[in-house]
Amino acid sequence: MSEELGLSVKKAEDFSKWYLEVLQKAEVVDMRYGVKGFQIFMPTGMQAINEVTRLLEEELQKFDHKPVLFPTVIPESSFSKEAEHIKGFGDEVFWVTQGGEKKLEERLCLRPTSETAFYPLYSLWIRSHMQLPLKLYQVATMYRYDTKMTKPLFRTREFYWIETHTAQKTFKDAQKQVEEDMKIFESVLKKMQLPFLLFKRPEWDKFAGAEETYAYDTMLPDGKALQIGTTHNLGEKFSRVFKIKYLDAKGKKKYVNQTCFGPGISRMLGAMLAIHGDDRGIIFPPSIAPIQIVIVPVYTKETKTEVLEKTGELLGKLEERGFKVHLDDRDKYTPGFKFHEWELKGVPLRIEIGPLDIKNKKVSLSRRDSLERITIQEEKLEEYVIEVLDSIGFHLENRAKELLSVRDAINLKEIKENLKNGGFIRVPFCMKENCADKLKEKTGAEIRGAIVGKKEKPKGKCAVCGAKAKEIVYVAEAY
Amino acid sequence: MSEELGLSVKKAEDFSKWYLEVLQKAEVVDMRYGVKGFQIFMPTGMQAINEVTRLLEEELQKFDHKPVLFPTVIPESSFSKEAEHIKGFGDEVFWVTQGGEKKLEERLCLRPTSETAFYPLYSLWIRSHMQLPLKLYQVATMYRYDTKMTKPLFRTREFYWIETHTAQKTFKDAQKQVEEDMKIFESVLKKMQLPFLLFKRPEWDKFAGAEETYAYDTMLPDGKALQIGTTHNLGEKFSRVFKIKYLDAKGKKKYVNQTCFGPGISRMLGAMLAIHGDDRGIIFPPSIAPIQIVIVPVYTKETKTEVLEKTGELLGKLEERGFKVHLDDRDKYTPGFKFHEWELKGVPLRIEIGPLDIKNKKVSLSRRDSLERITIQEEKLEEYVIEVLDSIGFHLENRAKELLSVRDAINLKEIKENLKNGGFIRVPFCMKENCADKLKEKTGAEIRGAIVGKKEKPKGKCAVCGAKAKEIVYVAEAY
Repeated sequence: MSEELGLSVKKAEDFSKWYLEVLQKAEVVDMRYGVKGFQIFMPTGMQAINEVTRLLEEELQKFDHKPVLFPTVIPESSFSKEAEHIKGFGDEVFWVTQGGEKKLEERLCLRPTSETAFYPLYSLWIRSHMQLPLKLYQVATMYRYDTKMTKPLFRTREFYWIETHTAQKTFKDAQKQVEEDMKIFESVLKKMQLPFLLFKRPEWDKFAGAEETYAYDTMLPDGKALQIGTTHNLGEKFSRVFKIKYLDAKGKKKYVNQTCFGPGISRMLGAMLAIHGDDRGIIFPPSIAPIQIVIVPVYTKETKTEVLEKTGELLGKLEERGFKVHLDDRDKYTPGFKFHEWELKGVPLRIEIGPLDIKNKKVSLSRRDSLERITIQEEKLEEYVIEVLDSIGFHLENRAKELLSVRDAINLKEIKENLKNGGFIRVPFCMKENCADKLKEKTGAEIRGAIVGKKEKPKGKCAVCGAKAKEIVYVAEAY
Repeated sequence: MSEELGLSVKKAEDFSKWYLEVLQKAEVVDMRYGVKGFQIFMPTGMQAINEVTRLLEEELQKFDHKPVLFPTVIPESSFSKEAEHIKGFGDEVFWVTQGGEKKLEERLCLRPTSETAFYPLYSLWIRSHMQLPLKLYQVATMYRYDTKMTKPLFRTREFYWIETHTAQKTFKDAQKQVEEDMKIFESVLKKMQLPFLLFKRPEWDKFAGAEETYAYDTMLPDGKALQIGTTHNLGEKFSRVFKIKYLDAKGKKKYVNQTCFGPGISRMLGAMLAIHGDDRGIIFPPSIAPIQIVIVPVYTKETKTEVLEKTGELLGKLEERGFKVHLDDRDKYTPGFKFHEWELKGVPLRIEIGPLDIKNKKVSLSRRDSLERITIQEEKLEEYVIEVLDSIGFHLENRAKELLSVRDAINLKEIKENLKNGGFIRVPFCMKENCADKLKEKTGAEIRGAIVGKKEKPKGKCAVCGAKAKEIVYVAEAY
């Protein structure tokens, strides 16, 4: 619906402005709904949301997670049962208080997350060890009355995610589930060509009600980290409050151990667009592109029939091979306009066909990532398309990985110095919360936690207080 | 999660009780969430919702509708702009009034339908005839503070649907859109083997703000009609209020004409389960079954490897042919338990394999609709499966069609008499609202409207007041 397709700002010059402009012009989101922090997912955005969701659901279902959908509202009595949870979320929920002009008997909050929606039912459903593990997930929108600055896809008051909620026999089983979550998430992030580091969040930065929180941070082009998903081991914290018990094989009553996992779909999408995009618009990695290939016929009145016949033939062939192809045969726009539109909207590969191509049995292709244009023999098209889509994915992945460079620092001065370039900074740390506060105050950056799956032994002293360092942690400015 | 799989009540004896029990036991919905009228979609239900949604989206996209997602909340100032609309919906919306413990500056209602969310943006986006028709849709949950009796999937305070919102140049274009909607919907209902009649709703029963309302009614086994979808020609009613104008080809400013179409996914699902199910549980039509074929291996310790090898082989073969197959290799349940569970959950076709079958190169199949059991040569399996799934669909469709029998009546007494058997009753009618009220008061039944696409000329007098009849209308008790 945008009439002007060009971007007025370069990504390298003003990332923030570029990001807002590209999301609007490529029809990803529109922020002009008129309620602060609420965004409209536009067609390009919604198609991409559906692709990300599909990838996640496929992986979850492979591991036997089953879909459900709980109500959007949570009664206050359930919501306020777990003390840490209400402390963490109480100030940032929207309350429904009226039905028509009548006051409701009990306030209902719009779910900020759904532990307190699911778990009262878990206590009804779960009776025996035979039912465990119970693995349910939902695709849903969440609501948080967030008072910080909002930014489309990254920080909004309504956002899109998947949340899984599992019940397990033991803490160890729960920990295994957390590891399975990591496997699921990493496989999807790989397909989106999204670079990430996996952290164990420090005590003070855990999810409200969790025993342990693991979080995925990606790094944006402006040097700031963005959390795109978390998985939590809740232990028995919620099961004791909601009385979720099972009879074990010996007939003994036990509390279940729980986990929840939240891939942040809106944020994953935002990060993917921010990281891969360029001055012409967004670029979708081929494995997640709603349209992988667009075919643009180039014709005059005289050659229209002939050209459309050929493009229709190619469309059929490529679709048969399983590619997501779109034939843009709109008469009211010029080929040039179409080229610009599909570049803006990030289609990885464009095919152009004119009468001369047909005569020469050739096809012209344009790669969205490198903007290279290649002409090949028509008979080699299918073979070439497989190759070039792979190559685009590979190229995007390598380019994105550069954002993950990590630098070392051993004191606040070095941290500040390094932060000028953005990115992650590795520092020895004492693991005390007041040192984290001080670091934040002095540098504006946050402790993202120790890295998971890599033993990094601290040498020397805490970069903030000079006491003996307990862990190596990663520091970054963050959204 | 249900431990007892058998139903305690027969469908023919107490439809209402049967319906509630089968939905709970087959894990379609759970009504014990604790907030009146809010249901939990359980795994069987959610998988089916996803299938229905997929069918609808596929059809919509064929006709160039594009997906979007608007916020769940609508600011009061937009919601109350169109006078008829607010009159129709004002008493039945939930209001969000607080963020944390702070009062919001403006109340936000949870969308009961989204005209007033979409159309302020349409006035921003639409400038030129080049942009028309604009065809957007969203898959979303709606909220109505309905004070009538709630019933799972049929009447709840939160429900699932798709809504399309289009903007067109002329009233005639809008009418063509309504016809396209009909084509889309009828194709999906056919795949669900759902019988229906299509009515033009009388003036007093139109959508709040529509020029014309067309509605699909199905007929449930208890003889009551259920509206499962509507499509509305809104004319310029909303575009004048929201100032949605475009420049036509001659440079003249005009108001757009609008349509909206709402296939009620929750209700379509409920009707499908209610109509096709039997005393053993639900029955999915093969073209919409989340699982079309379940394979149950039957083995002892000694034969386990051999049997699982064979079932794995068949699973692969059938999946390759595009069937949705599930291999139930859970060790903790007996084959008998599994048979019951999959019958309850409505899988159309079951395959059993034991060591003797393998030896004889045979396969045993059970049809869910007729409960017939057939043994065939293994080599004929794929061919037979195609045939039998078709046959199940055909059988369900024919059985369901019987619900649509229509009887005639010419006065209130005959209407009452006929209503004892439920179903649709065809009557001559004067088309006055107070006669409709009287009919409702005297018989409990409603005028569903004149049938679309069939000219039925009224003979004689209005069945209520005796004045000259203007149309033939259909009367039924309704949900």
